[in-house]
Amino acid sequence: MTDLPTVRLKPKANARAIRHGFPWVYENELVTDRRTKKIEAGSLAVLEDAERRPMGLVAVNPNSKIFCRMLDRNMDASIDQAWFEARFAKALDMRARLYDTPFYRLVHAEADGLPGVVIDRFGDTCVVQPNAAWADRLIEPMTAALASVIGVQNILKNASGRARVLEGLDEENTVLLGAAPSEPVPVVMNAATYMADLTGGQKTGLFFDQRANHGFAAKLSNGARVLDVFSHVGGFSLAALAGGATSAMAVDGSAAALGLAEKGAAAAGFEDRFTTRKGDAFDVLEALAQEGETFDVVICDPPAFAPNKPALEKGLRAYERVARMAAPLVADGGYLGLCSCSHAAELSLFRNASARGIGRAGRRPQLIHTGFAGPDHPLMPQLAESGYLKALFFRL
Amino acid sequence: MTDLPTVRLKPKANARAIRHGFPWVYENELVTDRRTKKIEAGSLAVLEDAERRPMGLVAVNPNSKIFCRMLDRNMDASIDQAWFEARFAKALDMRARLYDTPFYRLVHAEADGLPGVVIDRFGDTCVVQPNAAWADRLIEPMTAALASVIGVQNILKNASGRARVLEGLDEENTVLLGAAPSEPVPVVMNAATYMADLTGGQKTGLFFDQRANHGFAAKLSNGARVLDVFSHVGGFSLAALAGGATSAMAVDGSAAALGLAEKGAAAAGFEDRFTTRKGDAFDVLEALAQEGETFDVVICDPPAFAPNKPALEKGLRAYERVARMAAPLVADGGYLGLCSCSHAAELSLFRNASARGIGRAGRRPQLIHTGFAGPDHPLMPQLAESGYLKALFFRL
Repeated sequence: MTDLPTVRLKPKANARAIRHGFPWVYENELVTDRRTKKIEAGSLAVLEDAERRPMGLVAVNPNSKIFCRMLDRNMDASIDQAWFEARFAKALDMRARLYDTPFYRLVHAEADGLPGVVIDRFGDTCVVQPNAAWADRLIEPMTAALASVIGVQNILKNASGRARVLEGLDEENTVLLGAAPSEPVPVVMNAATYMADLTGGQKTGLFFDQRANHGFAAKLSNGARVLDVFSHVGGFSLAALAGGATSAMAVDGSAAALGLAEKGAAAAGFEDRFTTRKGDAFDVLEALAQEGETFDVVICDPPAFAPNKPALEKGLRAYERVARMAAPLVADGGYLGLCSCSHAAELSLFRNASARGIGRAGRRPQLIHTGFAGPDHPLMPQLAESGYLKALFFRL
Repeated sequence: MTDLPTVRLKPKANARAIRHGFPWVYENELVTDRRTKKIEAGSLAVLEDAERRPMGLVAVNPNSKIFCRMLDRNMDASIDQAWFEARFAKALDMRARLYDTPFYRLVHAEADGLPGVVIDRFGDTCVVQPNAAWADRLIEPMTAALASVIGVQNILKNASGRARVLEGLDEENTVLLGAAPSEPVPVVMNAATYMADLTGGQKTGLFFDQRANHGFAAKLSNGARVLDVFSHVGGFSLAALAGGATSAMAVDGSAAALGLAEKGAAAAGFEDRFTTRKGDAFDVLEALAQEGETFDVVICDPPAFAPNKPALEKGLRAYERVARMAAPLVADGGYLGLCSCSHAAELSLFRNASARGIGRAGRRPQLIHTGFAGPDHPLMPQLAESGYLKALFFRL
């Protein structure tokens, strides 16, 4: 690999962290001269420490704050189809062990050894989010490896990730193999059927990360009246109905998402027990309180109110507000599930904001369960911040 | 309740925290004169704030650092059999909803509204740990309520908890109702059978808190060779065998615990796939490494290495050592589960120590799952420290 350019750490850079597995090098940690600045986005390079000892093969993007992403500690690795195949085979082995059906996040970026690459699998279709420049450049061997190891018929590229903008990449969705499904794809999880819109929906069409938390809510929901706020395509409400809920109401601002939720309910024969209410979640929570409605199980799974550190204080206040407005709707002895997908709101901050909101509503909660994203969303221990998803289940 | 003595907060005490649900008052927060010091351990009293406004009904123990434990915010409550019945009915409702069979922690102290009281249920037998003086004094109405609400035949008192010493209580185990079972009780969890020794075993005979984590390990274990270190009665290994493990080895220092594990394996027909190895866990880990053994799944569930703050640094080093010694035994692409039941080692500290140990063994882990104690071990949000149990599952 002597034909590759080299990039070198400054003496002050944290070479030790990188040696211990940290996968990124920021621009200010590198000796960047005119030559390194000219490396084309997505190119490979050899990373050296300040003493010019090679540390690994990295992908370089001079347009991104994350200047280098570690691809392989082995300097002799060829980042070719066989390399991708080995990564995919390892990722597949874990998912196949844990999930009965081929619907899951197959690749969760850095933690699966493919920096910036997210791949969700929906049976014989994969949706790829190549959210780093190197992956865009190597999309052909990646696609070939995916088809060969996973054996899928269709591979779609979803370019809507915000990260692509930071990497200076286009936002064009394309079909990499086969064809895009013309209809929403039915996905069975926790005995519920979800309709995933793989081309027009949010992200890759469905959020697999909440699966275990949906399952926990379903166990609470036998014989219960359930309210699912910020429902998207009915994640918690459809699982609750499969768990024996007597009724479930899904609240969301998106008519398209609620339409898919209704389709999913109909597909599983739940339509008689399922209602939807379109509107701003806070408005609907207030209206339900005024109507004197109560539910045995209430779940709120809002968008990220605190996606980054500057938004933290405001975000925590929004989580507290959700808790304060949702708690009065929970019947005595009932359950309240509160979720956060905010990187910046770490577990104890989110728990405190939630408990404060519940307390302000005059209720005294037990915390019965804390859940995170499922095992198809592995983490690098070095990137604890990537543990964005938290789900807290309280009993009131 | 005007015949009850009163205890009063000092102006500097955190009355707000208590109003918001904090369940304890420490001695140094109270105006303690000769009269309050003379209140008999386990008596009821009315707690007042510094302005003499009543705050609730508390149990007092002048022998304990926790001078008052909040029993009821309602000053007019009678702490009698009916009061206990209401608490038990609420606790039972949640467990009956979440568990198919009547084996669980029925009461988890403060979070279930019964400060210091732990009750585990094994079918028609309950084991009560009254780890606070008030519960010892009111053991009769409590026993009557337990029999009436839960309908159990046998109620045993286990007085081995360390907390009882801090409360100045005796250590005498007794039978409160019915009879102690003469044989270990078979308990089915995660399709495995565990033998619980309700009279001679550790704590109340079985640790229910790891049930969901046993279940996660079982899902990883299909077709796997499994090593269960610090196995007690075979928590992880028997669940793994039920999950399809080709072999499981349990390692523990207690011959009695391993004997119960063998009985449990035999009861489920797993004896051909199950072996035990008695000895110091660190010695056995070292010996297995020298023998060149590897396993597809390794789980280490040690005793609390960091039960309190002074023991934290030493405890974290011990957790790191467990990780460092266990990681080399994990086959490439295999799984390592590491548990901590240390109050003082909060999640991020334990995760860092574990990741450091794995890194020192030359392995690079993915963190695929973080689990806590099950929902039959609820927490008060105000006592986050009571979230003692953490289980981390890594893929190496």
